[in-house]
Amino acid sequence: MRIVIKVGGSAIAPSLEAKRFSEYAQVIRSLAKDHTVLVVVGGGTPAREYINVTKELKASNALRDLIGIGVSRLNARLLISAMNDAAYPEPPHDYQEASLAMYSGKIIIMGGVQPGQTTDAVAAILAEYVHADLLIRTTSVDGVYTADPRVDKNAKKIDHMTPQELLELVAKMEMTAGANNIFDMLGAQIIKRSHIPMMIISGQDPHNIIDAVNGKKIGTLIK
Amino acid sequence: MRIVIKVGGSAIAPSLEAKRFSEYAQVIRSLAKDHTVLVVVGGGTPAREYINVTKELKASNALRDLIGIGVSRLNARLLISAMNDAAYPEPPHDYQEASLAMYSGKIIIMGGVQPGQTTDAVAAILAEYVHADLLIRTTSVDGVYTADPRVDKNAKKIDHMTPQELLELVAKMEMTAGANNIFDMLGAQIIKRSHIPMMIISGQDPHNIIDAVNGKKIGTLIK
Amino acid sequence: MRIVIKVGGSAIAPSLEAKRFSEYAQVIRSLAKDHTVLVVVGGGTPAREYINVTKELKASNALRDLIGIGVSRLNARLLISAMNDAAYPEPPHDYQEASLAMYSGKIIIMGGVQPGQTTDAVAAILAEYVHADLLIRTTSVDGVYTADPRVDKNAKKIDHMTPQELLELVAKMEMTAGANNIFDMLGAQIIKRSHIPMMIISGQDPHNIIDAVNGKKIGTLIK
Amino acid sequence: MRIVIKVGGSAIAPSLEAKRFSEYAQVIRSLAKDHTVLVVVGGGTPAREYINVTKELKASNALRDLIGIGVSRLNARLLISAMNDAAYPEPPHDYQEASLAMYSGKIIIMGGVQPGQTTDAVAAILAEYVHADLLIRTTSVDGVYTADPRVDKNAKKIDHMTPQELLELVAKMEMTAGANNIFDMLGAQIIKRSHIPMMIISGQDPHNIIDAVNGKKIGTLIK
Amino acid sequence: MRIVIKVGGSAIAPSLEAKRFSEYAQVIRSLAKDHTVLVVVGGGTPAREYINVTKELKASNALRDLIGIGVSRLNARLLISAMNDAAYPEPPHDYQEASLAMYSGKIIIMGGVQPGQTTDAVAAILAEYVHADLLIRTTSVDGVYTADPRVDKNAKKIDHMTPQELLELVAKMEMTAGANNIFDMLGAQIIKRSHIPMMIISGQDPHNIIDAVNGKKIGTLIK
Amino acid sequence: MRIVIKVGGSAIAPSLEAKRFSEYAQVIRSLAKDHTVLVVVGGGTPAREYINVTKELKASNALRDLIGIGVSRLNARLLISAMNDAAYPEPPHDYQEASLAMYSGKIIIMGGVQPGQTTDAVAAILAEYVHADLLIRTTSVDGVYTADPRVDKNAKKIDHMTPQELLELVAKMEMTAGANNIFDMLGAQIIKRSHIPMMIISGQDPHNIIDAVNGKKIGTLIK
Repeated sequence: MRIVIKVGGSAIAPSLEAKRFSEYAQVIRSLAKDHTVLVVVGGGTPAREYINVTKELKASNALRDLIGIGVSRLNARLLISAMNDAAYPEPPHDYQEASLAMYSGKIIIMGGVQPGQTTDAVAAILAEYVHADLLIRTTSVDGVYTADPRVDKNAKKIDHMTPQELLELVAKMEMTAGANNIFDMLGAQIIKRSHIPMMIISGQDPHNIIDAVNGKKIGTLIK
Repeated sequence: MRIVIKVGGSAIAPSLEAKRFSEYAQVIRSLAKDHTVLVVVGGGTPAREYINVTKELKASNALRDLIGIGVSRLNARLLISAMNDAAYPEPPHDYQEASLAMYSGKIIIMGGVQPGQTTDAVAAILAEYVHADLLIRTTSVDGVYTADPRVDKNAKKIDHMTPQELLELVAKMEMTAGANNIFDMLGAQIIKRSHIPMMIISGQDPHNIIDAVNGKKIGTLIK
Repeated sequence: MRIVIKVGGSAIAPSLEAKRFSEYAQVIRSLAKDHTVLVVVGGGTPAREYINVTKELKASNALRDLIGIGVSRLNARLLISAMNDAAYPEPPHDYQEASLAMYSGKIIIMGGVQPGQTTDAVAAILAEYVHADLLIRTTSVDGVYTADPRVDKNAKKIDHMTPQELLELVAKMEMTAGANNIFDMLGAQIIKRSHIPMMIISGQDPHNIIDAVNGKKIGTLIK
Repeated sequence: MRIVIKVGGSAIAPSLEAKRFSEYAQVIRSLAKDHTVLVVVGGGTPAREYINVTKELKASNALRDLIGIGVSRLNARLLISAMNDAAYPEPPHDYQEASLAMYSGKIIIMGGVQPGQTTDAVAAILAEYVHADLLIRTTSVDGVYTADPRVDKNAKKIDHMTPQELLELVAKMEMTAGANNIFDMLGAQIIKRSHIPMMIISGQDPHNIIDAVNGKKIGTLIK
Repeated sequence: MRIVIKVGGSAIAPSLEAKRFSEYAQVIRSLAKDHTVLVVVGGGTPAREYINVTKELKASNALRDLIGIGVSRLNARLLISAMNDAAYPEPPHDYQEASLAMYSGKIIIMGGVQPGQTTDAVAAILAEYVHADLLIRTTSVDGVYTADPRVDKNAKKIDHMTPQELLELVAKMEMTAGANNIFDMLGAQIIKRSHIPMMIISGQDPHNIIDAVNGKKIGTLIK
Repeated sequence: MRIVIKVGGSAIAPSLEAKRFSEYAQVIRSLAKDHTVLVVVGGGTPAREYINVTKELKASNALRDLIGIGVSRLNARLLISAMNDAAYPEPPHDYQEASLAMYSGKIIIMGGVQPGQTTDAVAAILAEYVHADLLIRTTSVDGVYTADPRVDKNAKKIDHMTPQELLELVAKMEMTAGANNIFDMLGAQIIKRSHIPMMIISGQDPHNIIDAVNGKKIGTLIK
């Protein structure tokens, strides 16, 4: 299978620790023995720290995005470092570069691409660009819930959704809260328009990724 | 003022005619005497023709986007040709290039940037990137309506909306119809997050752009 | 063999139809099973339509060339779309990129390169750059004639010419008519200086390309 | 005067705080009213944190350098953010880009360039490249001392040195300690070969930079 | 006036001497006080030496062209060095870069662009691209002759030719001798299609360039 | 083994002769049958001739470096020409490009990278970047001596040194003479920090390179 994995910054870089990068590297390398793997890494805590400074400096949102992209690319370099020779040595700057880098036979690891696009959206467009069979998105909860499980005791995990249902859910959340921590709305539009199967799983334990690929019923499947 | 204008492909290239490009060029040049102007051009009919072929060829959506970007850049070159020396001679490939090209003192004209982003979204991100005071979007109707004026006789033009209202309207339309012909949802999110005033006006008569800049009450103001 | 094919725009895009692109794609893919294939695509009718607008806009010839290059690259993208995974996914911008892209093992498809060079010349220089064993040029007639077969009933197809004879013929035509529809003069100089065998054949039926490669006596051989 | 300022990462980013960036921005903007100013920013504490992870991951020194360059470029972006419109909006990637960016009339702010070159060396080569009249290097002490002032009470600040004396001093320190915190050895070779006057001053108070430019006797002058 | 000057390699680099570069630099700088000047430099003797080695190594003509381009760019850098700050510091790689570099207000100096194009052709296309009012080509003789003046005593200098006459002359020479030392055939086609006035003058004394611009009757005028 | 070879310009281009390039090409190709080989070529006599002109023109050291880089890249192209299809066809511009080019399976040949870095330093950083097992540096003498063998009869060749000893030796020589012809000081720092084994051997006979790889005791081993 051709698999795109969006590794949430909060999962791999809650703080900057070699251990998390090593663990993810090990899982992804083992996956790459049987599959073609492309990884998009988010910004995590270091991005938040940099972006906080830009807010105090009253920088434009576009500049903030650029700094977030910069941090996500640094995180991508760390994950490359943890991969030894298994990864393509440079994080591609865009989808075309990523697509061409695949001819190396290596694991491709990249960060953000352009202002106005979250790394969720990047992962979805990349999946579309390379005709991925599966998009996996690791996050801080173990799937999509009917409500925020941290506030609503009756919230239930959803095992399966259609892309349209996902799109409506995230649209509603962004309309009210200004953001959502499930999946970017543009990304949701992309997976809908190109019928890309996606699994949203917890990134706490990187081995969940392998379970997801092997068809175990974890997280939420959007299809 | 610093103004970004999104010229709809259907407005400037309903078919490929020099006359439309000349008319738009004349209006934009006269505007540029008093303002800094950046223009994003859409793909119009030629893009639709190319994209129809990709659909028959069952190309991926990402490839379709790339071809749409290619056509929008050709349209940008045509508009540059119609500007004589008033325009920057090359359509920038992204926001950074556009921003740097402004040091030339010329009118900047560009097309699409990356797969997954419509030229609406490009115009909104560009406006954010260069701290534009106003974003103008020309379209085939004369503003935003409460319903589709072509089917609903009671549809009324909305003179003024908030960015949040626009976002909710386009989200609802995309959820049901899969697309909307008012403004791209990602673009709406951008103008909301960065408080960019936008006017949606008819592109039938390019002089509407000058009226909009001069504060005439035409089209719909989103602010 | 290493083969460069110049697919005339008039052959593959007399109008924009998926069928022509599919037919060419099928032939080229079957050829690529036994040979290394690089393709240069011309602009065809869509280029002519765009260029007509630039003429009305009185754009410089260099700008016209750039727009022609843009359209030929779009046509290259369409042909790539018709190839599924058999083609390198991006049309190279110049000879170096094309040469490096060959390491992918894929079919390389490109359009024009720089103002002042026709796609005929691009094909000849590419053939020189990659040490091609054969250059095939598809055109609207079935070879080179002693005179224009559409006006002179006694015109006879020439089965074999030397590069010097071709050069003299096209030079004479360009001196009198300002253009020729056989092969670009710069291209003719290139194949002469580097002794590149070339076949000029009809592009009406793409299978002629296979016949040409297999040594069938069709079209005109320049050697 | 044309002035290159190397702002030490430890001076501007001992931790990530908007305040330090604002203070430096204010000083540099006031300087830029009378002078042409180019700034090279170091990596500071955030670079050290990233590099520590690479060490645990046993990444090569070249990869570590690349990550250090990445962080220094983020710091450059933060300083650009603090400058509003006074700075060139993108940190140049190398000396040629920096040199061309000067035509904008804006303050140029950049980070590292290539593995194997510290930002000290980058500042010296940039000064050479743009024919700077003065190179200022802010550091954590108030000049060059005869010995390490933190350990040797008799250490005395040197008011004036020749480039050759500086080179010998830093060479001796690097031979014994493997590093020095005065100035990079390659950088010292550059200012010697091109006779670039340099001042090494404390970066605690950014206003020292203005004093240095105005000829006040602070820090150590190398000439 | 906007003037493109093709400085023949044999004129500026018969051997590598600073004096020739200084003389040309002085003339071009004085010209640039009243005119916009762009210069294309040829390869001269150093190019010939490098190309001789490629011939012995049996390198392809395309590789030879690339090496010739490399040497012409080095010569361009030398001329830039001789210009102090009057010239744009980098030789542009193509016409777009050259055109954008003009916003610096500096003299643009470049070498070759792509295999298959002589620096004569580059100068003609550049002149077309920037809408030059005049193209000057310095060569080793003082104009175009009716026959080779070195062998035919009755050869007469031609004071004025049409572009069509030039094209026919160089075509005839290239057909018989394989090359001509008047002007490249592709270049001649370009000046014909875009009606660019050209003067062919002796480059022995660089001041001829000023005479040519001032309308003195020297060399051969093609118009 | 992965081997980086620095071929001194004085060894391969004492004057421009095809024979030297052919000899080196033959040796390197035979080596590449069993090893991954990357080559960095210096500037040699042609570089010196160009640089002499820049000195007379009083160009900055940075411009001189750029011209030296230009010549070293031309020499790299000549060596590529001598390799037929065994070499990657383009000299990479930096370490990242070189590293990516290795996926072609071809021999990589490059010249200089940035002002302020000698090709010695480039070879050392490249060796670090690609995790080379061995760095070979060909020079005009047959190893490192205790003193200059051309002036001191008692000078003895050193068979083995530590990186630290090499660093101290070249530092001492650069402090007194302003340059050394053993190995660049920055390069020495790099091989020390990354523990890269290096052999310094005579480049008179290219076969010494094979002897060095095969473990023969020639030249000086730094380890």
